[in-house]
Amino acid sequence: MEINVVNALTYEDFVKLFCNVVEKCPLIPAAIWSYRPFKDLADIEAHIREFIHSLPDSGKEGVLRCHPDLAGRDTQSGTLTRESQEEQSQAGMTTLDSAESLQMYRLNTEYKERFGFPFVICARLNSKADIVCQLSERLKNDRATERERAIEEVTKICSLRLRNIVLSDIQTKL
Amino acid sequence: MEINVVNALTYEDFVKLFCNVVEKCPLIPAAIWSYRPFKDLADIEAHIREFIHSLPDSGKEGVLRCHPDLAGRDTQSGTLTRESQEEQSQAGMTTLDSAESLQMYRLNTEYKERFGFPFVICARLNSKADIVCQLSERLKNDRATERERAIEEVTKICSLRLRNIVLSDIQTKL
Repeated sequence: MEINVVNALTYEDFVKLFCNVVEKCPLIPAAIWSYRPFKDLADIEAHIREFIHSLPDSGKEGVLRCHPDLAGRDTQSGTLTRESQEEQSQAGMTTLDSAESLQMYRLNTEYKERFGFPFVICARLNSKADIVCQLSERLKNDRATERERAIEEVTKICSLRLRNIVLSDIQTKL
Repeated sequence: MEINVVNALTYEDFVKLFCNVVEKCPLIPAAIWSYRPFKDLADIEAHIREFIHSLPDSGKEGVLRCHPDLAGRDTQSGTLTRESQEEQSQAGMTTLDSAESLQMYRLNTEYKERFGFPFVICARLNSKADIVCQLSERLKNDRATERERAIEEVTKICSLRLRNIVLSDIQTKL
């Protein structure tokens, strides 16, 4: 998809296409549509990053709270968004054995009790072992550091989801 | 539902319960969970209002762009959220005759072309005639005035949706 195709989209089509580039936050693509025309995909990404960083701390935590647990309730009950399902599956989060499931449950619970938001990590860029290791490690952060750390992961996830949309479209065209 | 019940909810249950008090913006209840304990329902409402008003203009427009057209494509195809369906139905937007449908289509299109976001009005507080009249009237505003005017309507819709959740719960308990 070329950028002039994206720039020609109505806000309705733009929001529909990019609605889940930040998990369950269609408000974000809906907001940054105001800044079109975009120079390129990196420009869209920069506007999304800037928008998230402009939010008050509560807003950043709100973005995090729209994410599911890794290997959590939604993973088990099949109620993840399509994007999360693919990402968690790729990182092996959908095929944990019972000991691994219990470990993830305990770590997720401890993390949520400590910070008041779920552990977010770009699953596509991390193996199962990396995820467990980072979850244990990041539990040691203070809340402000961890909020920023988690938001960094949100922007990585967003970047890959944006690229995925554009590449899928090119593949459909070929 | 008493406020101490609301204050005791995990962020997951809080977001699930209030996810659509602002149309398709779970980010907003997810954000204001940070401010609990709440004094009462009015306090929750005040935090939501404050959060929306703290957004940059693009963010306010983003909130508006998460709303469907009145008597639009989603109304006709049955893809409205449950809350919007009830509200549009109550205002007679789901049973327009073909002349009325065409009039709404034309006015919505003109409005969206002028402002880059959809016409938002608290349907529960307005009759079909009021809606058409206000849509024609508000088309005369400049963009900044109309953005603020529409956000006022979002907060009215939110207020009624919040009350509806609490009342339903009380009715279930009785």
